[in-house]
Amino acid sequence: MRVGNLGEFSLIQRIVGRLPQSGTVLLGPGDDGAVVAVPDARVVVTTDLLLEGRHFRRDWSSGYEVGRKAAAQNLSDVAAMGARPTALFLGLGLPADTDVAWVEDLADGMRDECHIVGASVAGGDIAQCDLVVLGVTALGDLGGRAAITRAGARPGDVVAVTGRLGWAAAGLALLEAGHRESSEPDLARAMDEVIGAHRRPAPPYSCGPEAAALGATAMLDVSDGLIQDIGHIAAASGVGVEIDPAAFEVPGPVGVAGRFLGVDPLDWMLTGGDDHALAAVFPVGIGLPAHWTVIGEVIEGAGVQVDGRVYDRSGWNHFQGKL
Amino acid sequence: MRVGNLGEFSLIQRIVGRLPQSGTVLLGPGDDGAVVAVPDARVVVTTDLLLEGRHFRRDWSSGYEVGRKAAAQNLSDVAAMGARPTALFLGLGLPADTDVAWVEDLADGMRDECHIVGASVAGGDIAQCDLVVLGVTALGDLGGRAAITRAGARPGDVVAVTGRLGWAAAGLALLEAGHRESSEPDLARAMDEVIGAHRRPAPPYSCGPEAAALGATAMLDVSDGLIQDIGHIAAASGVGVEIDPAAFEVPGPVGVAGRFLGVDPLDWMLTGGDDHALAAVFPVGIGLPAHWTVIGEVIEGAGVQVDGRVYDRSGWNHFQGKL
Repeated sequence: MRVGNLGEFSLIQRIVGRLPQSGTVLLGPGDDGAVVAVPDARVVVTTDLLLEGRHFRRDWSSGYEVGRKAAAQNLSDVAAMGARPTALFLGLGLPADTDVAWVEDLADGMRDECHIVGASVAGGDIAQCDLVVLGVTALGDLGGRAAITRAGARPGDVVAVTGRLGWAAAGLALLEAGHRESSEPDLARAMDEVIGAHRRPAPPYSCGPEAAALGATAMLDVSDGLIQDIGHIAAASGVGVEIDPAAFEVPGPVGVAGRFLGVDPLDWMLTGGDDHALAAVFPVGIGLPAHWTVIGEVIEGAGVQVDGRVYDRSGWNHFQGKL
Repeated sequence: MRVGNLGEFSLIQRIVGRLPQSGTVLLGPGDDGAVVAVPDARVVVTTDLLLEGRHFRRDWSSGYEVGRKAAAQNLSDVAAMGARPTALFLGLGLPADTDVAWVEDLADGMRDECHIVGASVAGGDIAQCDLVVLGVTALGDLGGRAAITRAGARPGDVVAVTGRLGWAAAGLALLEAGHRESSEPDLARAMDEVIGAHRRPAPPYSCGPEAAALGATAMLDVSDGLIQDIGHIAAASGVGVEIDPAAFEVPGPVGVAGRFLGVDPLDWMLTGGDDHALAAVFPVGIGLPAHWTVIGEVIEGAGVQVDGRVYDRSGWNHFQGKL
């Protein structure tokens, strides 16, 4: 069944029927707008546009995986402000010949990713489009804490990361090279893991509020690549950052994929996006939980250096990014 | 200058530089998320997707007009909940060959439409896309009032509208028929007015909170056509609505356009979208300000009747609409 063959409102009913609402959502789908409780009197808001062919491919990812990923990258942005995500909104453009089952899977994926953090998909809008377009907006609750911006890093602070680095980039590199399977068991397992990471990121959501509670001075979500993103902190804070490449332990599957493709896996870890790790800056001397890895320090100056040298920034997009 | 030729971040800087922030925006563009003050502890949220070729055409509307319209339809949804809009967020997909000036005009249009209600464009996301895509999300403040949903209409209540009806539909009909100018002064003036209304709606934003304060039992933004939209109130409230066609006074320019094209202007008023009038239901006996026109009443039953007959619903889209 294609969405173009469904009767009026029944696609909307099918989607809404799959979306349970938390108690934080005072009024859910079905009206001109939703109403969300904001006990803190401040709300964190972030929005992202995901486009078929650019941010995902329907032949590489299922509807469910696209839904998980679309939700994940927005929920991760909320976490990176030190907040707990509460509600998600979806503007969805669909070709008329899209399978209804694909859209239902998408809704299920968004629902399940939201469920991890206790958030709901509380509203949206559907329009016919030549390609699949997702405009996702997420709200979050700061729970009385200050928002952690990119602008608070001070010389002497330490830079730490938590979550995966390089996994999604390794998976994407395999997909782009046409490698999805192997008869060699270790390679096959590594492929499954990194391709799975590309299709479905697993951001460390709870580490965002944790970092805020620990006293983080700056934080962001690693979505464009670690070096580029830490560059945003350096620029916003008016400082430099020195990254120690020896601080990175290459995860097993990423190393296996690197050997297979002849790529230095550290390159994926330093420049790959899509894993939605968190990078945060802390005052020196704070005892960080073991899932945070200190990878560098904040210095006087500007820009990001790796092992004392400016890392090659070529290949980045020139007009895209967050407002 | 095309957006694809701009250096990194400079399109974002050009846009953000045109967007002043109100005091309600505690943290504006430039981070993983914005932070908006919500003194009421509840926030109204609505999202809409606008697609080039479907919701606007770049040869029929300027960037500025698209920006005004994109903002207007979201701000109007907030008003239709009885709330005052506070902040807007924009997910923007752009072809690489888009003129930078077009994007700057778009930002100016959104800014100016927001300025009417005291709201700000507080954040967003830009991505490269084959067509221009706008995913707009608006937030609003209920100011201590209950949200006015579609579900509260009761038999005996009166149905009233405020704002323009039929203007944008008349303008679109002229554009679709290839008529933009006339040497006949009255016709030329009418064409300017209704085509202008199509390009730039003028929703009666302040009438949303006003209706809530007056005791409206149900309300919505007329975006798909009056009959269809009042049908949403009837369905959500479990009632019928009887519309009196004699209650409608055909606005001068809409009448002129109708005579020119040989169309009954009442048809545009009953089924045309895009003017973003407000339709609200009030308990009988409330003294409504003169800018509200009573057009019908709520009855036991289901559906919407005009002059005692079910209005033809053909031609509506089958899978699109608000979640």
